[in-house]
Amino acid sequence: MTRQIPSSEGSFNPHVPGIDYGMLDSLVGYGVRRAQIAIYNDFLPALDAWNITPPRFSALVIISRNKGLKLTELAQVLGIARSGVVALIDTLSEMGYVDRLAVPGDRRAYGLALTALGKKDLRQIEQAVLKQDQRAAHRLTVEERQQLLTLLDKLACP
Amino acid sequence: MTRQIPSSEGSFNPHVPGIDYGMLDSLVGYGVRRAQIAIYNDFLPALDAWNITPPRFSALVIISRNKGLKLTELAQVLGIARSGVVALIDTLSEMGYVDRLAVPGDRRAYGLALTALGKKDLRQIEQAVLKQDQRAAHRLTVEERQQLLTLLDKLACP
Repeated sequence: MTRQIPSSEGSFNPHVPGIDYGMLDSLVGYGVRRAQIAIYNDFLPALDAWNITPPRFSALVIISRNKGLKLTELAQVLGIARSGVVALIDTLSEMGYVDRLAVPGDRRAYGLALTALGKKDLRQIEQAVLKQDQRAAHRLTVEERQQLLTLLDKLACP
Repeated sequence: MTRQIPSSEGSFNPHVPGIDYGMLDSLVGYGVRRAQIAIYNDFLPALDAWNITPPRFSALVIISRNKGLKLTELAQVLGIARSGVVALIDTLSEMGYVDRLAVPGDRRAYGLALTALGKKDLRQIEQAVLKQDQRAAHRLTVEERQQLLTLLDKLACP
């Protein structure tokens, strides 16, 4: 596993003046990464009041819509290791948002569900994320947004 | 700073069967992230023989094209903290690819440059990355690729 490099909000400039980017500007992978960093750096302060990061948000939405979701399914959705999901669920439990449910017939397994507080706060969190996402994509028309989602899906499913 | 969650190549599924993704499928930020994970998971094994990760690759290209590049400039390009850049440069130096150059008149500062080995290997590494990038985007036509880069740039520069 490659070592994680600490990120630093606000010090990212997608086009640093005076710098020659060479072939990077023509790589789809680089363009995607550049956009992902910019959106991530916008998301964090926007959702900071809720103490919600992108993975926490995705986990809450997926758990809310898939009753009794298993840890391994959530790991697949998020693309993170099982140990990371366990830590994530611990955090969401500490925040009072997620419960672990016993699975009948299997003492070791458990499913995930939102608490009443989780459901209540998620409604407001979703509004905040929707607003942030629209702001991040404000330079795109509605058609361009749809076009972009279609093209990105072709990258996600090569 | 949010704690890093360990990633796990190969366990990511962009559309896990039977899972309801709710509003996530309509968020530009989620689509970008989903594509970025898929491309990253494809890049790592493709460049593993060179021990090259996306940040190492970007750093080598930028250093090769910007003589005497400063650490702070590289940090801005990559969107990582200065401490991360120092560690990255240490690694690239250990690989024999990068030299630190003295800056006349400033004993503490230094610029970055590729070694002869760095320049030589970068030519082959760039070919490998180009091949991987084309494979990642193989479902897109040439026009769609250009369209995607344009749309992504509107996200990176909101």
